[in-house]
Amino acid sequence: MPIPKTMRAAVLYGEGDMRLVDDYPVPEPGPGEVLIKVAACAICGSDPKILAHGWPNHPPYGKFIFGHEYTGTVAALGPGVTELAVGDPIAVEPHKGCGVCANCRDGLYTTCLNYGQADKGHRHYGFSTNGGYAEYACNHVNSVYKVPAGMPLDQATLITTAATSLYGIRRIGGIRTGETVVVSGPGPIGLMAVTMARLLGAGTIILTGTRSERLALGLDLGADVLLNTREENVVERVFGLTGGVGASAVLECAGTSQAAADAVEMAKKNGRVALIAMYKEPAPLNVNKIVQWNITVAGSKAEGERSLAQALALLGRTIGSTNRVNLSPLITHCFSLDDIHAAFETAEKRLGGAVKVVVKP
Amino acid sequence: MPIPKTMRAAVLYGEGDMRLVDDYPVPEPGPGEVLIKVAACAICGSDPKILAHGWPNHPPYGKFIFGHEYTGTVAALGPGVTELAVGDPIAVEPHKGCGVCANCRDGLYTTCLNYGQADKGHRHYGFSTNGGYAEYACNHVNSVYKVPAGMPLDQATLITTAATSLYGIRRIGGIRTGETVVVSGPGPIGLMAVTMARLLGAGTIILTGTRSERLALGLDLGADVLLNTREENVVERVFGLTGGVGASAVLECAGTSQAAADAVEMAKKNGRVALIAMYKEPAPLNVNKIVQWNITVAGSKAEGERSLAQALALLGRTIGSTNRVNLSPLITHCFSLDDIHAAFETAEKRLGGAVKVVVKP
Amino acid sequence: MPIPKTMRAAVLYGEGDMRLVDDYPVPEPGPGEVLIKVAACAICGSDPKILAHGWPNHPPYGKFIFGHEYTGTVAALGPGVTELAVGDPIAVEPHKGCGVCANCRDGLYTTCLNYGQADKGHRHYGFSTNGGYAEYACNHVNSVYKVPAGMPLDQATLITTAATSLYGIRRIGGIRTGETVVVSGPGPIGLMAVTMARLLGAGTIILTGTRSERLALGLDLGADVLLNTREENVVERVFGLTGGVGASAVLECAGTSQAAADAVEMAKKNGRVALIAMYKEPAPLNVNKIVQWNITVAGSKAEGERSLAQALALLGRTIGSTNRVNLSPLITHCFSLDDIHAAFETAEKRLGGAVKVVVKP
Amino acid sequence: MPIPKTMRAAVLYGEGDMRLVDDYPVPEPGPGEVLIKVAACAICGSDPKILAHGWPNHPPYGKFIFGHEYTGTVAALGPGVTELAVGDPIAVEPHKGCGVCANCRDGLYTTCLNYGQADKGHRHYGFSTNGGYAEYACNHVNSVYKVPAGMPLDQATLITTAATSLYGIRRIGGIRTGETVVVSGPGPIGLMAVTMARLLGAGTIILTGTRSERLALGLDLGADVLLNTREENVVERVFGLTGGVGASAVLECAGTSQAAADAVEMAKKNGRVALIAMYKEPAPLNVNKIVQWNITVAGSKAEGERSLAQALALLGRTIGSTNRVNLSPLITHCFSLDDIHAAFETAEKRLGGAVKVVVKP
Repeated sequence: MPIPKTMRAAVLYGEGDMRLVDDYPVPEPGPGEVLIKVAACAICGSDPKILAHGWPNHPPYGKFIFGHEYTGTVAALGPGVTELAVGDPIAVEPHKGCGVCANCRDGLYTTCLNYGQADKGHRHYGFSTNGGYAEYACNHVNSVYKVPAGMPLDQATLITTAATSLYGIRRIGGIRTGETVVVSGPGPIGLMAVTMARLLGAGTIILTGTRSERLALGLDLGADVLLNTREENVVERVFGLTGGVGASAVLECAGTSQAAADAVEMAKKNGRVALIAMYKEPAPLNVNKIVQWNITVAGSKAEGERSLAQALALLGRTIGSTNRVNLSPLITHCFSLDDIHAAFETAEKRLGGAVKVVVKP
Repeated sequence: MPIPKTMRAAVLYGEGDMRLVDDYPVPEPGPGEVLIKVAACAICGSDPKILAHGWPNHPPYGKFIFGHEYTGTVAALGPGVTELAVGDPIAVEPHKGCGVCANCRDGLYTTCLNYGQADKGHRHYGFSTNGGYAEYACNHVNSVYKVPAGMPLDQATLITTAATSLYGIRRIGGIRTGETVVVSGPGPIGLMAVTMARLLGAGTIILTGTRSERLALGLDLGADVLLNTREENVVERVFGLTGGVGASAVLECAGTSQAAADAVEMAKKNGRVALIAMYKEPAPLNVNKIVQWNITVAGSKAEGERSLAQALALLGRTIGSTNRVNLSPLITHCFSLDDIHAAFETAEKRLGGAVKVVVKP
Repeated sequence: MPIPKTMRAAVLYGEGDMRLVDDYPVPEPGPGEVLIKVAACAICGSDPKILAHGWPNHPPYGKFIFGHEYTGTVAALGPGVTELAVGDPIAVEPHKGCGVCANCRDGLYTTCLNYGQADKGHRHYGFSTNGGYAEYACNHVNSVYKVPAGMPLDQATLITTAATSLYGIRRIGGIRTGETVVVSGPGPIGLMAVTMARLLGAGTIILTGTRSERLALGLDLGADVLLNTREENVVERVFGLTGGVGASAVLECAGTSQAAADAVEMAKKNGRVALIAMYKEPAPLNVNKIVQWNITVAGSKAEGERSLAQALALLGRTIGSTNRVNLSPLITHCFSLDDIHAAFETAEKRLGGAVKVVVKP
Repeated sequence: MPIPKTMRAAVLYGEGDMRLVDDYPVPEPGPGEVLIKVAACAICGSDPKILAHGWPNHPPYGKFIFGHEYTGTVAALGPGVTELAVGDPIAVEPHKGCGVCANCRDGLYTTCLNYGQADKGHRHYGFSTNGGYAEYACNHVNSVYKVPAGMPLDQATLITTAATSLYGIRRIGGIRTGETVVVSGPGPIGLMAVTMARLLGAGTIILTGTRSERLALGLDLGADVLLNTREENVVERVFGLTGGVGASAVLECAGTSQAAADAVEMAKKNGRVALIAMYKEPAPLNVNKIVQWNITVAGSKAEGERSLAQALALLGRTIGSTNRVNLSPLITHCFSLDDIHAAFETAEKRLGGAVKVVVKP
């Protein structure tokens, strides 16, 4: 299929000013890059913030296409690309490191020391580099992963979220076989954390949050116990459910200071707490308990260390299968790119119980 | 040498009421225990608190002998003990786990789930069980370590402190070869953290604190840079000294909320923070930085996982040698057991620049 | 229910001489021990060897009851036991460490330095201490695990095997999400390795072996590809199936020199090989490949580091459930204790396609 | 200083045919590369093999400059290089990964899946790409490390060797504080392994080998015990020296099948063995001991995971200092590039007790 010169795209022209245009130039893949025909792009919790306020080092307004949870097919290969073929179904990850700094060379590219410096080779697609709310996107091969056969491309937009949850789990040394896991916050990251913990061998999984309909989604994904933080003292309940011992692992995906502080309070002796959210202010953590109970707290930056590859390998076996986890209930809404404003309103206001909202060009 | 029936001991009779007695019964070692002829017992920062307020599950007032950083020689063996011989020079660790709970069986006896339950086999010598401010003490072999030849027994009282610092280092995955390490707080634990970090292959070591004479002690132990937190913005200085990158590892030994918060602020991307102190209140940690910079914060409970054995193996090569670290400057004062009240006053008020004060029966 | 003075038991009287007796004294639980009313005891691959040749430090012939994969209910508690209650359903592990040596104190009790020394507290139930081919057995609480509700006690005899496979997986750092795993040898340990790898998040699982009916069992437990080592070059096939890269993890459960050598040959760069079998002679491993490909080979001693607890927590959720793994096909035969000789013959000769043979007193 | 158009270089024209030429074109640094004015290049044990037989994917005979342990100063910067400045003293590592394959992205570039494929960005300087037996060399910045002030550039040629030893240590989880370490093989890698183990906190270090003068060098670098494998049963001696327990870590640097097999035999329960050498044939490892004793054997590929940076950070503090390790005795011979044939003869035949022979253009 011939590649057009221009494409339809949602372009940011200023704070809160997103416009649909028809004549955005289709990008041309440079060395090591591929052109992607976008199939779907999911709205992330950070997208409304980018719409409202931009992002450090973002492309100039009037040129800035955001969106970073996209899938599609390879439309063209830049010079030197041998890892993929035209037509391959793919998912992307937002971060592509510089490849030269100490962190990138250690495999820790989501904490690249040259963040935002395009001339050093760093890319943050949908943030400091153009992303996926458009008919085409252009990514370095290091940020592109082949989607396994049988995984629908709209469901595959969840892979970025799954990989973020997975990286949080990896940051605390993985799930230990059969251990009790608390997931706080039943947003997409929390729900995927439940999913991953279940598939990786957790024992009892306790999901906490404030919205009962969101919590209920967790049951099908593998949660055993739901606790509503508005209705119960969740710290006490966790101790009650664990014979007074506390949770072995806590995956904090709620993003409030209270939730972060509670995560430490719920942990057992030698427990591990992963912080997998954004926080507006410092959280008053019980450092004395952290010491006396020999607790580890690990922050987790995005979908690091090729967690997308791992998530695809695991969920690629799963999606669509009858006897494992079905992720489709998480994608509650689907909009055309033409209706992206409505899509954003649905996602932000959680209209109609929205969990994950997908935009299709 | 015959073992007397009674001994001289400092006994707690109530809050703040420590009395020297001459007729305390010499304990008799039970199965798996050894009787120790105490050579020296160092005053720990927690001892004045025990003197003032007791400790949960402490032996009854009138019977309670505290002190937990002691060394001596084996005076007698209880039934079944084959690991040691009478006359062996030894150091002790305060914690002896129950040996049955999940944590003990995993080797994590400092977080024994049966803490304070003597009937389950748990011991916390000098806290919930009698300790070392006496002529004799009685310890389970699991809490006794042979002191290498050539290490003076008064210096060996520092091993408990060394092991506490070492365990903090272990809890963040050890010192990585050549990395920049910040140690905050030049108390005994901080100074031993400097010592251990130097012996374990650190690169630049930065020691921070408020007292310049204490900081100065760090230089001989291996610190490269001293920063006075009263005179400089230590977080800024750490970034200045590391080319804007931050510290690879921070060993927080100061025990204030500010120090804990600063420890996170000093850390580089993917940096690790060990908390090796006691804190009176929650600390406002920058959880967003912890996430965005992929930072790990680990609390460290006492001298866990047989860190005493490791510290003895390392420092046993060192103490007294001319070309490695000399620990003797840390033992600034030595008192007879008869003068234990003066010893405590010296330690608490840091009279005469006191760092470590040792009591000898 | 009153506990009788004597019991029916299969007693070893000499090499190859196992006799059923009716008047074996029921053991009395000492401090920290529990008396178990045995429900079932599975025959392990090492049992026929014990029957034929004894075991180092075994109890004297005429007194020696072997069998180590047993389950039952708690019949009585020894002094000081609070961890369990009479009537609790339980499974056991064979190893109970001395609790004093360096390895035990580090949690590594299956490599206790006081192996076989009963006076130091070491126990190897069914080997150097009496075991489970009897109506009653007596175990230290450290070797007893509560069976989750709903798990039949005959199926629970598989937990020792499951834990052995799991420990092998743990020894190579666990299963990494979605990775390709080869399991060589479809005996009980290999089949449980397939099961565990599947439940712990493996990607493609390749099972290799010589008997097609055994291999076929692996399919239901989670294997994706079966390779018959008699019919194909399995090393080549593994490379073919992985795009020329090799297997990420190899779990060697076959126990031949060739299988051990092949395990290294199958591994990819940075791959890990777990050895989870017994070998009669040294294996010619390609050490140059181990170096040039940065490979790790880890031996795995028994069901170490409380792997039984982990296996029970995971499989306790699973057995009997309709939508996860069903282990019951592995228990192919069940005999009364009276028919233990027939049970052994069935197990040894694999009569009727025997996989796991269970004996019930 | 102006950069000439041509340079003096030792060029391989065929097997065993190394010629000095004066008119080799000085390379021009491309994007991300730097031109290096070579100060010194040490002869590695693999160099005589390259001289004799070439190397897979080597540059064409008549153009091929080898040598990979070189240091120098930055002479010019290619486009986009901001990490270094002209005049910086530097050391290099031979491996530069493709930056795209799974291994490189995980930080494991010494096992790059695109080995030898220059078009994919892989470089193996002195092997599949030109190296350092010349007046100038050209390296990608990812393979160049700044030498700390005060470290002489001829001594800094040892950094590649040091990093290889260090990586072996890292591959078995580092040196554990105070543990007993055996180093087998007192060649440059073995001697640097002794050095690193000592600086990283080892306890007793036992060095084994066949040449007493080589062994003696180990004493100054930190070895405590020397064992001559021709004169004693080293396995027995290691057990004798460790109270019958065995060595905690064995660093196998001798490169014979016997040494690899012995390394396993020397290890204690739960011990770790690093293989850091090249082997001509499979080694008969005692796999049953590996299992029963829960042993880990890890191969170590070159100076991986930025071990050069770590080694420089550690040894940069050390070389030239009076109270730590002095490496200069290891550099026994120094030749001009004009005398490279004599240098090779000295290195190969170990004339005059040669350990490390350095060539200076």
